[in-house]
Amino acid sequence: MSGNVIRCKAAVAREAGKPLVIEEVEVAPPQKMEVRLKILFTSLCHTDVYFWEAKGQNPLFPRILGHEAGGIVESVGEGVTELKPGDKVLPIFTGECGDCRHCKSEDSNMCDLLRINTDRGTMINDGQTRFSKDGEPIYHFLGTSTFSEYTVVHSGCVAKINPDAPLDKVCVLSCGISTGMGATLNVAKPKKGMTVAIFGLGAVGLAAAEGARIAGASRIIGIDLNASRANEAKKFGVTEFVNPKDHDKPIQEVIVEMTDGGVDRSVECTGNVKAMISAFECVHDGWGVAVLVGVPAKDDEFKTLPLNFLNERTLKGTFFGNYKPRTDIPGVVEKYMNKELEVEKFITHHVGFSEINKAFDYMLKGESLRCIIQMDA
Amino acid sequence: MSGNVIRCKAAVAREAGKPLVIEEVEVAPPQKMEVRLKILFTSLCHTDVYFWEAKGQNPLFPRILGHEAGGIVESVGEGVTELKPGDKVLPIFTGECGDCRHCKSEDSNMCDLLRINTDRGTMINDGQTRFSKDGEPIYHFLGTSTFSEYTVVHSGCVAKINPDAPLDKVCVLSCGISTGMGATLNVAKPKKGMTVAIFGLGAVGLAAAEGARIAGASRIIGIDLNASRANEAKKFGVTEFVNPKDHDKPIQEVIVEMTDGGVDRSVECTGNVKAMISAFECVHDGWGVAVLVGVPAKDDEFKTLPLNFLNERTLKGTFFGNYKPRTDIPGVVEKYMNKELEVEKFITHHVGFSEINKAFDYMLKGESLRCIIQMDA
Repeated sequence: MSGNVIRCKAAVAREAGKPLVIEEVEVAPPQKMEVRLKILFTSLCHTDVYFWEAKGQNPLFPRILGHEAGGIVESVGEGVTELKPGDKVLPIFTGECGDCRHCKSEDSNMCDLLRINTDRGTMINDGQTRFSKDGEPIYHFLGTSTFSEYTVVHSGCVAKINPDAPLDKVCVLSCGISTGMGATLNVAKPKKGMTVAIFGLGAVGLAAAEGARIAGASRIIGIDLNASRANEAKKFGVTEFVNPKDHDKPIQEVIVEMTDGGVDRSVECTGNVKAMISAFECVHDGWGVAVLVGVPAKDDEFKTLPLNFLNERTLKGTFFGNYKPRTDIPGVVEKYMNKELEVEKFITHHVGFSEINKAFDYMLKGESLRCIIQMDA
Repeated sequence: MSGNVIRCKAAVAREAGKPLVIEEVEVAPPQKMEVRLKILFTSLCHTDVYFWEAKGQNPLFPRILGHEAGGIVESVGEGVTELKPGDKVLPIFTGECGDCRHCKSEDSNMCDLLRINTDRGTMINDGQTRFSKDGEPIYHFLGTSTFSEYTVVHSGCVAKINPDAPLDKVCVLSCGISTGMGATLNVAKPKKGMTVAIFGLGAVGLAAAEGARIAGASRIIGIDLNASRANEAKKFGVTEFVNPKDHDKPIQEVIVEMTDGGVDRSVECTGNVKAMISAFECVHDGWGVAVLVGVPAKDDEFKTLPLNFLNERTLKGTFFGNYKPRTDIPGVVEKYMNKELEVEKFITHHVGFSEINKAFDYMLKGESLRCIIQMDA
């Protein structure tokens, strides 16, 4: 049932920080519990850039990056019963086996089997790659490798979505936008009328703001060091913009003063440990909840006075907005389909696949939120 | 309606660390929104000892300590409508005005008006004391000062309880036992079958274990540096005892190994910042919740890697087990009345009021959980 090797175009990262090279590669058929997808649209996320730059991790090249995408199931491997050729899907960088303690917990999406693994460059079934060129293996990335016309992913990392959903829009829901929105809706859970502070107004932070808007927050305070974010943020429901550079005192004190004791909820999307501490210390005592989304440097320590907890504040972290990939992401797509969630405003750029390196430029210059890469252009 | 000055016996703390002196004092009538209580039973809590020793705070003497107690309303001041003479009550060291944002929040019990204030030695109505001796004012403590046959408290700090409740038992529910039990039941909220770790097996920690037992925890792991706690803890549902002194590695690692990845919930009742960090780091990723109860030294810093949060752990603090004094404590007494909660096992000693200093000795030697002091003996 799984068919033959497919030859197709892929954008291969051959060296850290060097432009991707569009090459013809071979994509092996899906093995046990795997599916092969035809990718129609993919978008660029900071995590791709981070592993492309390979400054903080073990470099693994040649590699096919990419993890925000939408496509169609081309063929399925042995044992796959919940997906069939022709299904419209989003591949997800973390999976849901359905059987482990995490998958069975209402609270977790950190599947034991298919949890994100940034170091792994092969498929878990046999430790081999499905990509090669002239016999040379090409490594996978996050189990998705969507910068290729065809890719092979574990079936537990595939969300089957509404067949009417436009992939050029909803492809962005497979990572950053869901991460930010879920952090607010699933973890911070502001009640209608509450105040929410969002630290960092990149795509994830703006998605967190969008979540606050959907939840009916009365004030959404956006914090960013980049003053140019202020205007754009309004589109995402941000009602007030605060730039820490404009203040002499810790930004948590500024926010506490603005809100008569602190915000009801905060969501940290920068990964800077100082911002994490500010995000925690700016929530109101008695009921305030702070949620950490941004990924910190390895050795950063979170420090605060225990009394800040004892005064009935809560600090939580989240991964992928606490969404379970297969169970929950189809519902996020429905939020877009029924116009509750606006996705278009996150999409600032479009390029054809042959120009994929432009997407990297836009992001590195801080010009883009999301750049959609059309595979057949 | 408020009556005259009452002359009665009180145990006065005249000097830091020196035995209390039983003296005849004058208790003025209750003013606006105050009530005067006849105390029948009181018990000793570490917080009394801490302020009696006055090592860490501004000393305020002469002062009448005491805040765990049960009594009867003797008279009420102007404006008091919800209490009347003869009502059976527990005075509480923190209050509930019913009108502030905290009282109106479902989540908070940190009333703006009547929140615990350890420095204040007078009544908030007029900044005066209601206690005096030969014209010399004697300071209040925590708004309760229950080491006196009569005391005046703000009506917002009084829980009216079931008239059938035995005050010699339920008096201990006005502070420590509710604090520990509420930390588990109201904040950690273990589901039936979950594993729970309790750090510190004093009265508060054992009450937290009692909460875990009531919630149906499958394993209750008690952690204490004092090996003699192991046996007693069994009565409170503790199924396994761990002494950090018996291990070469951080105790969080020991607990993670014992529980295949971490406990589902932990409750920290020591106030030691290292124990706080252990309590947080020993909960399972994906769903673990750690709750801080113990009060730390002023300059202690809580430190951890942010990744511990990002792996979907939650850290919360609680004050008085998140119980609202007037709204919720009557229900805690009902838990005792319907035999869901066992209180007797916390009561290890009894003394007459004239021997109140013995209660201090028992606690300082670590011999007692709770010592009941009978006012008329």
